[in-house]
Amino acid sequence: MTPESAMLRDTLSANLGDAVTYDRDVMSAFHRDQSRLTAAGQPAALVRARSVQDVVTTMTSAYAQGIPVVARGAGTGLAGAANALDGCIVLSLEAMNRILDIDPHSRTATVQSGVLNGALAAAASKVGLWYVPDPGSRAISTIGGNVATNAGGSCCAKYGVTGDHVARIKAVMADGRIIHTGANTRKNVAGLNLTQLLVGSEGTLGVIVEATVRLRVQPNAASTVVASFAEPSEAIAAVLEITRESDPCLVEIMDRTTISAVDELTHMGLDTHAGALLLVQCDGRDAANEAELCAQACNAAGATEVYATDDRVEGDEFMHARRMVLPALERLGGTLLDDLAVPVDKLPAMLTAIERTARSHEVLIGTFGHAADGNLHPTIIFDDNSPDETRRARCAFDDMVLACLDLGGSISGEHGIGVLKLPHLEAMVGTVERDIMARIKKALDPKDILNPGRAI
Amino acid sequence: MTPESAMLRDTLSANLGDAVTYDRDVMSAFHRDQSRLTAAGQPAALVRARSVQDVVTTMTSAYAQGIPVVARGAGTGLAGAANALDGCIVLSLEAMNRILDIDPHSRTATVQSGVLNGALAAAASKVGLWYVPDPGSRAISTIGGNVATNAGGSCCAKYGVTGDHVARIKAVMADGRIIHTGANTRKNVAGLNLTQLLVGSEGTLGVIVEATVRLRVQPNAASTVVASFAEPSEAIAAVLEITRESDPCLVEIMDRTTISAVDELTHMGLDTHAGALLLVQCDGRDAANEAELCAQACNAAGATEVYATDDRVEGDEFMHARRMVLPALERLGGTLLDDLAVPVDKLPAMLTAIERTARSHEVLIGTFGHAADGNLHPTIIFDDNSPDETRRARCAFDDMVLACLDLGGSISGEHGIGVLKLPHLEAMVGTVERDIMARIKKALDPKDILNPGRAI
Ligand SMILES: Cc1cc2nc3c(=O)[nH]c(=O)nc-3n(C[C@H](O)[C@H](O)[C@H](O)COP(=O)(O)OP(=O)(O)OC[C@H]3O[C@@H](n4cnc5c(N)ncnc54)[C@H](O)[C@@H]3O)c2cc1C
Ligand SMILES: Cc1cc2nc3c(=O)[nH]c(=O)nc-3n(C[C@H](O)[C@H](O)[C@H](O)COP(=O)(O)OP(=O)(O)OC[C@H]3O[C@@H](n4cnc5c(N)ncnc54)[C@H](O)[C@@H]3O)c2cc1C
Repeated sequence: MTPESAMLRDTLSANLGDAVTYDRDVMSAFHRDQSRLTAAGQPAALVRARSVQDVVTTMTSAYAQGIPVVARGAGTGLAGAANALDGCIVLSLEAMNRILDIDPHSRTATVQSGVLNGALAAAASKVGLWYVPDPGSRAISTIGGNVATNAGGSCCAKYGVTGDHVARIKAVMADGRIIHTGANTRKNVAGLNLTQLLVGSEGTLGVIVEATVRLRVQPNAASTVVASFAEPSEAIAAVLEITRESDPCLVEIMDRTTISAVDELTHMGLDTHAGALLLVQCDGRDAANEAELCAQACNAAGATEVYATDDRVEGDEFMHARRMVLPALERLGGTLLDDLAVPVDKLPAMLTAIERTARSHEVLIGTFGHAADGNLHPTIIFDDNSPDETRRARCAFDDMVLACLDLGGSISGEHGIGVLKLPHLEAMVGTVERDIMARIKKALDPKDILNPGRAI
Repeated sequence: MTPESAMLRDTLSANLGDAVTYDRDVMSAFHRDQSRLTAAGQPAALVRARSVQDVVTTMTSAYAQGIPVVARGAGTGLAGAANALDGCIVLSLEAMNRILDIDPHSRTATVQSGVLNGALAAAASKVGLWYVPDPGSRAISTIGGNVATNAGGSCCAKYGVTGDHVARIKAVMADGRIIHTGANTRKNVAGLNLTQLLVGSEGTLGVIVEATVRLRVQPNAASTVVASFAEPSEAIAAVLEITRESDPCLVEIMDRTTISAVDELTHMGLDTHAGALLLVQCDGRDAANEAELCAQACNAAGATEVYATDDRVEGDEFMHARRMVLPALERLGGTLLDDLAVPVDKLPAMLTAIERTARSHEVLIGTFGHAADGNLHPTIIFDDNSPDETRRARCAFDDMVLACLDLGGSISGEHGIGVLKLPHLEAMVGTVERDIMARIKKALDPKDILNPGRAI
């Protein structure tokens, strides 16, 4: 042990007691997120914060000694942003999992950052309210992590992403100072928007300890449309028409590889000959008619099969199929999930680029995603024991990112930059813009201790 | 003329030609915004930029010599944020008023910042699309100003404020460097959110030269409900119930003073005995039924009169009454418009505080606002030739701000901080938070030349 790390241990142990550990075995469970092909270092300490004070203590000590801190929610991230750095403190917020307040009048909830998205959603629904953001990981990811990554989900098409539902954030800054951003009101333009600066900052600007989020009244029961198309381009034509006529709360797409994988797992009898499948839901006051319009749009775009239902159970079955996409693809091999966004009318070109990539690197790619947002998750299936396949997977991954940039897209629609996408960040945002981001980082974290080298 | 200002003139004139003037008469028309009780200084120069290059030239010169720059749209601001500073360059963006692109596929528009909100709305509507944000000043204020203040409007209740519709910003930074923020996609989490940092920054972080905004498909024809209540608290009870049951696109409130003033001006036969009037519009697919639910909620809350109509012309007449509020109040004397936001369920308490203020300072206050957002504009009527009345007006103004803070509200829902609200900013955001904002400002504008001393 170096003298520095001995000093760190002394300070942390004296002030945090049981909340800190240096045990390698314990730490190994907190040492990386769920991303593939991302490096993770060996932490010096793991703090499992039980209170805001624990976070303040950790940050104050880390700041004094210039030790990097990696904040961590549930570690379900897909960009390596919560991976440990060598010699860092991993600061887990998971144990700070209390719902502090649900206010039915102002329709807000205030929660500690370790609360699981699904736990908040369940608590809100008990009082007839709805926490909207619905990442696929909602049962296993934290609100703090969702806010720090600006997590998306399926219903963003209509309701927006996590950041659109955050009213206030309580955060501990690099130097241990506490801030409260935003306001309890629906509208607020006092000062700079620190809330949206923290949203999506992937642990680089402050440690989120609490968030006040907006709740909505529960929506109407959804009506569901499922449509198969011979060609993905027809499915996208339908999407453009659908979003012109109605305001669906969900428009998901799966390609041929994904449909087959899901059908093999679920035996639902999906149309495995289709080139693309659309799953659409409407939850407006006039959901059945809206869904009918969506069905018409699918037919007009040349769907080979269209099925519409107001039955909730049937709708849930189709949603189950959608949720099974990742497990289904994972049965085929190792998976490297990408997350690209293009303007919706560029989706056909993006899908073509993905096919081209699969051919040229001889890899299998299953693609699915949030079609109305232009947000795709092309998922490369590869044997992660084979260095050659792994190399080809990474090449295919980078090729798709470049193709996305060529189409004027974003290199990340919802999973974030972390370490996985860092090589492409400057091409995405620009050199001056990256410099501006770095200046903001430096202004708020002058010693560069909060998740250094990530996201920015 | 000091040697510095001679030097400034040389540089500006050499590079900007006709676009720069030092003529006091010309400059006097660009020297303040529409706020009351805010000081304005004497500018050294006025640049009427015709191009991004003009803005770059201005900023480069100002940066080199450390001269303050006040960016200016149409000068309709109500917080003094566009008022000139002594010795500054006023940089008017008004002449940069070209709509660069309206893309019906991606449903976005890219405009120069001097484009009037109403001009953009009209151009979008020609291709069946809708630019949503609708400040009362939409006919006379610029998109750049709207973005820089994060302007609200009546339909925020359902559709959000200006910032919610901004996808990308092109801005010139203090040192003359150009940045492009955001992405063309609906979802994007690459790097820090510079877009929302610039939104609402009131000209302190960068000069916005272009914005790409999102458009929506035109909504359905609105159904309208008008309801009178004996007591404001009953009207608010109706608002809470209305927003539980439906998703109205507009929920405006007027108090007794405002109703009378509007009726005197328009002779519409409004219920001048009412303590409050609600104007509600629904534009969903099921607007008529939604409006019917709103009418029921008003009745249940004890409305003395409820009128519902699907007739567009009748609806427009009521909207006209709403738009006449300011002109009507202005007929009664000088007006000092406030802009406070509280959680919706705190509106009755806020209205009570406003009445108390009016009594204790013996001023007349007419209150109206965006009820579903909890955003009120109590408007103090005073004789601006009387120093005593002016003093009492300012005291009343500050009292209401303090009452709003006590209720957990925001000192500005949409008009911004500028200079008018600056004395209250720290009480609103907190000391550490203000320091964080100042650090960001310093990181992006190290010489403090962009609207120094305002907003932050
Ligand atoms: C099966 C599966 C499905 C998924 N589906 C989606 C999806 O639909 N949409 C989507 O957007 N993502 C999805 N994800 C990715 C992931 O779940 C999200 O990124 C999620 O928001 C991460 O939350 P977490 O609590 O696991 O955060 P972590 O992975 O622990 O951390 C993620 C990042 O946030 C930072 N962070 C975490 N907590 C804090 C805090 N309190 N303060 C400051 N920084 C913090 C970390 O430092 C790191 O940079 C999915 C992942 C899986 C495994
Ligand atoms: C009758 C009337 C009704 C109004 N109704 C509303 C309403 O409903 N909702 C609402 O929110 N406001 C309203 N306002 C206030 C005002 O119209 C808004 O604040 C508007 O957004 C200001 O736009 P502007 O172009 O006039 O900006 P200005 O007044 O010129 O400037 C306002 C601020 O923005 C900055 N700025 C302007 N352009 C740029 C740029 N290109 N780059 C960087 N900074 C810039 C200025 O420096 C200043 O800080 C109203 C005003 C009036 C007079």
